[in-house]
Amino acid sequence: MGDLVSPFTMRLDFQRGVLDSCNNVIQRRLSDMRGMYLDEEATEKAIEGGDPLLYDVYQYDVPFENGQLLVVTSVIQPGKVGDEYYMTKGHFHSKEETAEVYVGLRGQGYLLLETRGGEFKALPVEPGTVAYIPPYWAHRMVNVGREEFIFFGVYPADAGHNYGDIEKRGFVKVLVERDGRPTLLLNPRHEMR
Amino acid sequence: MGDLVSPFTMRLDFQRGVLDSCNNVIQRRLSDMRGMYLDEEATEKAIEGGDPLLYDVYQYDVPFENGQLLVVTSVIQPGKVGDEYYMTKGHFHSKEETAEVYVGLRGQGYLLLETRGGEFKALPVEPGTVAYIPPYWAHRMVNVGREEFIFFGVYPADAGHNYGDIEKRGFVKVLVERDGRPTLLLNPRHEMR
Repeated sequence: MGDLVSPFTMRLDFQRGVLDSCNNVIQRRLSDMRGMYLDEEATEKAIEGGDPLLYDVYQYDVPFENGQLLVVTSVIQPGKVGDEYYMTKGHFHSKEETAEVYVGLRGQGYLLLETRGGEFKALPVEPGTVAYIPPYWAHRMVNVGREEFIFFGVYPADAGHNYGDIEKRGFVKVLVERDGRPTLLLNPRHEMR
Repeated sequence: MGDLVSPFTMRLDFQRGVLDSCNNVIQRRLSDMRGMYLDEEATEKAIEGGDPLLYDVYQYDVPFENGQLLVVTSVIQPGKVGDEYYMTKGHFHSKEETAEVYVGLRGQGYLLLETRGGEFKALPVEPGTVAYIPPYWAHRMVNVGREEFIFFGVYPADAGHNYGDIEKRGFVKVLVERDGRPTLLLNPRHEMR
């Protein structure tokens, strides 16, 4: 039966995104995402200027076994690197046949998704949006608003993360600000494959 | 790869519990739970008096495959059958090594849990409570408040439901009102096994 887990509860602050008593907190700064934003000059300048915090992840780890579930909240700060909005690293699941569910709690964002076959989707997420990330779709969240973008997620504990492919080339499209509005552009790095 | 699913979003109304565009809505009336409340006389009287609605379930069905996830909200009405608060049927998962996550959205309730070995837990759930139901724990939600008790849930799509054992004997304890307060009592039917 693997490691037994006892039932437990946590408090989720819908306005701050904090999961109290979670046992795995991750902070991503811009230096953790070097090379993932198109504008490398803006990236280096911002890192020298203080290396801004991009997002926090609060996760409750349970045994990474099939049947267990991981609960996670993420708080993406508002901001841009050059014209490109702050975003999460994005990943495929290592076990690609696993889904994920996100629930928007605060702020305005987009969920970017793509398959290995090159299919791409961008879905708006706001408070009350439940997004279904099916098996085999890489996923990344992007904050396009002026306040923190906060969402809750659940995914299978044996899913794992595969950042490698996305770190190298990014998604099919990038989400940038044009005339004050979020705009999808083809990612030149992706085409260069 | 089984049936492919495309990414999609739904709207979750945190105040009403409704998942728009869900494809599986279940209504449970008291007649659907005959024999599950201790007071059989009160049960029959209430069924004759109009067969009250106990709860609604809104679920988005995806292929029932390992790795997929089911998203569900439940709305339990306030009320009692005799002294016993309105509750869900309660179940083990058919695939018992699967967990479930609940998030309280509105109202006041309790999550009752038990193992086949006779371990029992009762955890309060209110808005912002995230409850982890580990593998191998049967679970039931109970509305102990004066308004609707609403919660969101995610569980593995291959989990399945096993109502049989709980339908026959109930949980180790029942949640009844005593002096205006929710009180746990040993379930005499459970002891009679």
